[in-house]
Amino acid sequence: MSTASPLATLETPAALVDLARLQHNIAHMQQRLTALGVALRPHIKTSKCAPVVAAQIAAGARGVTVSTLKEAAQCFATGITDITYAVGIAPAKLAQVLALRRQGCALKILTDNSTSARAIAEFGRAQGEAFEVLIEIDTDGHRSGIPPESDELLAVGRALHEGGQVLTGVLTHAGASYQCSTPEALAAIAEQERALCVRAAQRLREAGLPCPVVSVGSTPTALSARQLDGVTEVRAGVYVFMDLVMCNVGVCSTNDVALSVLATVIGHQLDKGWVLVDAGWMAMSRDRGTQAQAHDYGYGQVCDAAGRMLPGWTMSGANQEHGILSNEAATAAGTLGDLTTQFPVGTLLRLLPNHACATAAQFDHYHALGADGSATVWPRWNHW
Amino acid sequence: MSTASPLATLETPAALVDLARLQHNIAHMQQRLTALGVALRPHIKTSKCAPVVAAQIAAGARGVTVSTLKEAAQCFATGITDITYAVGIAPAKLAQVLALRRQGCALKILTDNSTSARAIAEFGRAQGEAFEVLIEIDTDGHRSGIPPESDELLAVGRALHEGGQVLTGVLTHAGASYQCSTPEALAAIAEQERALCVRAAQRLREAGLPCPVVSVGSTPTALSARQLDGVTEVRAGVYVFMDLVMCNVGVCSTNDVALSVLATVIGHQLDKGWVLVDAGWMAMSRDRGTQAQAHDYGYGQVCDAAGRMLPGWTMSGANQEHGILSNEAATAAGTLGDLTTQFPVGTLLRLLPNHACATAAQFDHYHALGADGSATVWPRWNHW
Repeated sequence: MSTASPLATLETPAALVDLARLQHNIAHMQQRLTALGVALRPHIKTSKCAPVVAAQIAAGARGVTVSTLKEAAQCFATGITDITYAVGIAPAKLAQVLALRRQGCALKILTDNSTSARAIAEFGRAQGEAFEVLIEIDTDGHRSGIPPESDELLAVGRALHEGGQVLTGVLTHAGASYQCSTPEALAAIAEQERALCVRAAQRLREAGLPCPVVSVGSTPTALSARQLDGVTEVRAGVYVFMDLVMCNVGVCSTNDVALSVLATVIGHQLDKGWVLVDAGWMAMSRDRGTQAQAHDYGYGQVCDAAGRMLPGWTMSGANQEHGILSNEAATAAGTLGDLTTQFPVGTLLRLLPNHACATAAQFDHYHALGADGSATVWPRWNHW
Repeated sequence: MSTASPLATLETPAALVDLARLQHNIAHMQQRLTALGVALRPHIKTSKCAPVVAAQIAAGARGVTVSTLKEAAQCFATGITDITYAVGIAPAKLAQVLALRRQGCALKILTDNSTSARAIAEFGRAQGEAFEVLIEIDTDGHRSGIPPESDELLAVGRALHEGGQVLTGVLTHAGASYQCSTPEALAAIAEQERALCVRAAQRLREAGLPCPVVSVGSTPTALSARQLDGVTEVRAGVYVFMDLVMCNVGVCSTNDVALSVLATVIGHQLDKGWVLVDAGWMAMSRDRGTQAQAHDYGYGQVCDAAGRMLPGWTMSGANQEHGILSNEAATAAGTLGDLTTQFPVGTLLRLLPNHACATAAQFDHYHALGADGSATVWPRWNHW
């Protein structure tokens, strides 16, 4: 990073997005899913940021997935109408969904139980609205959803269809893929996600119910599926920034991680081999997703201001606005050198996050760094 | 909670503050420190909220402590001028500090090294400003600060004093107190924090340097110190809300926890004994501070909508906008009962947080709940 770097003018901590890596990640996922013959409906809960979503759409994404109704409203405000809210609907939120639909937003909702399905149908009939509804399928036991072979699947389908709503399809998310770390395990969980979701669609169709959409996905499975027969769309989110958890899962390298936190050295504890920075867990988030993985990066991997990895250096401890950087191996080997010359007070460093969704959420804007040295402020849509 | 409760009108997830508990916590800490003969300078990084800070000042607090310059600017905007920024200063932030001081804010800064001390003195002389500076003392080895017996302590003191700056005093934070869980251990770490900070002040004074302020504190030590001889002020933050980590440390009970997250039941996994809610780690934060403590509450303790504890029920798993509630003991004993009648879809629940500072930071406002059933929106000062 030259002395003309815009980084020196930023207040730290700051969230940085490397535009070249972002564009690479977007293009890579789009090309892969186009080759597999399915649509990509990115989950925008990772970036919550209009220019990032616009880049995904420009690259070929068809519609978006959201985790909050605020994200839905903000995407709709940018002109996107094809939106799936992929959290089981709380009936009290139907009025908000209706308001967005009445404005022209083709907002699709999700349920995994008859109680909610009946509430949707009842509210829809009372309001003269046919909601577009997906049924959530449980393909790995990690969270919500209906088992594909259950009676409840058909009961929910009938409650919606016979209740005058639009049974749009089935949706699953194999979150268990985050626990995998070999190509074989990833391919297996991707195939399980595909096969069980397609099976759920088949059962609905055999029962005479419509099921045009078969929606699967997570970043690990999207990048590991060998075929996606019967699937119509894939949802993936974190691929847009990538992170250290995804490095450990094995679907990217640290050179793909587009999000980092800029921090400033504020002191040292020389006897302990510690460098103190002005970014703690408030900036990095409390996410310790790599703790149980093969490589534990603490609260993040340390890079220099230009983004070059400093091998062995991690944020090993964090308070609210303090981070402790250390190099355990070099400390143990006695090869640490003089930290006050290697990392003088005032040094700018970048920290790669464990979990991009969590770290990004600690900021209300990004600084998008272009290859030309430019830095552009990109706001986020936080909260609910 | 009656059917007239304002909670039913709130969008979930939402951050709730119980005003009666908040006032109790504020009064309790103030009374205790007044009895010990020291001033309380609350750390407002927990609430980042004007009405909360106003209640602390009204109860007798003298000045505030902040973790960011944004908090300082926001407190100053409410009329508070006596502010200590308790993170070692990055020299690049001195221009912001100067701007606040020139507007009339008596903003004090912190350092623990000669490099920064010289940078402060140089910048101060160039700008014609005498910054008020505290020296950070390391009394427990957990983070930053200078050992009280070190040569560096006097070097920093001289660099500031001889450099024309105002050597305001010494400051320490015994963060290691969070690892304690018995009254004896807490009293011991409180006395260590006091004695070593007072010793640092003594050494500065013996060297002919001024040191009017001796500032110590953390919520556990503030509530456990048996005497505070030589101390002029105590800083504590999380006491204002309290949380499950503090319950495990032993300085409060769950009935003191004033912050909770309101969530709505969106489904069940009956075979697993799970209740799914629309609050995940984005609402609770990723903080798992009770994981290594005597009682692991997962991502939070479940209460009913009125705030009554549901013993054994915790948020045992969390995704971004999904929480998994379970009762491990009842599941193992086969005494769970029918979850669809106990927690029907749409049920409102409150979740007590592991770490109030982290959970509160996931929201941009609170709903302050009065004993009269009122709910008032209180905004937060987030980010940097």
